[in-house]
Amino acid sequence: MKISFEPIGYVRTDAETVPRHWTVSDVKGFLDIKQEFTPGLKDIKTGDQIVVLFHFHKSPPFTPDMLTQIPPHRDREFGVFSICSPRRPNALGLSVVRVDAVHNNMIEVTGVDMLDGTPIIDIKPHILFREECPSHPKR
Amino acid sequence: MKISFEPIGYVRTDAETVPRHWTVSDVKGFLDIKQEFTPGLKDIKTGDQIVVLFHFHKSPPFTPDMLTQIPPHRDREFGVFSICSPRRPNALGLSVVRVDAVHNNMIEVTGVDMLDGTPIIDIKPHILFREECPSHPKR
Repeated sequence: MKISFEPIGYVRTDAETVPRHWTVSDVKGFLDIKQEFTPGLKDIKTGDQIVVLFHFHKSPPFTPDMLTQIPPHRDREFGVFSICSPRRPNALGLSVVRVDAVHNNMIEVTGVDMLDGTPIIDIKPHILFREECPSHPKR
Repeated sequence: MKISFEPIGYVRTDAETVPRHWTVSDVKGFLDIKQEFTPGLKDIKTGDQIVVLFHFHKSPPFTPDMLTQIPPHRDREFGVFSICSPRRPNALGLSVVRVDAVHNNMIEVTGVDMLDGTPIIDIKPHILFREECPSHPKR
């Protein structure tokens, strides 16, 4: 059983080296979303934190020895499902970035840890607490 | 350009109606992960909050009129990328659930808002603040 997605857009950044992780990145870039999806961006505002789901398109094929890995700066192996490594059974990435501006279908962001050209699969609100959910009855 | 994923496992729950959202769900269930991935679960512990990425496998095909939608309990339309609706350009879901126990390849969780049989694409740590990242230098 295969699950198929098509990119809704691509990451654009001038950074030549890959920032290691969004939690330590101050790199700026753009989420270049396909024009056809622009109406879906209308509630994304400057200052928002958004979740970007993307394809680790440069990752090598997954092999069973990657089920545990030693993350950078750590001294022991972790199970792959407890770390953010790009080498995982499904090459699906998640980053939280800050919105600096929205220009039509281009979202200007800070906190990029993806390569230029990375395919974007989805954008979601970043919900830290239950009440922040846009569909929460208390909103 | 297509991005292809294969399920790493499936959600199991007895709930007959779909909880509306993880932020308001107390439903219990299991993440039934394929045996071959069990070593990758070793650092998932009771009490952890984990991010589950899954396929909205029962969603209807996306059509442009779904680019804005009125979420439950709200009175205006939101752009699809600012809400958690299962009707989105790529039917990719994200929920945060609490781990109650781990039995080999079965993760017992609370906060399920997926249907029984939902294909799981990935599990990631739930990182609220930069310092919580397993690969953060301060850890």
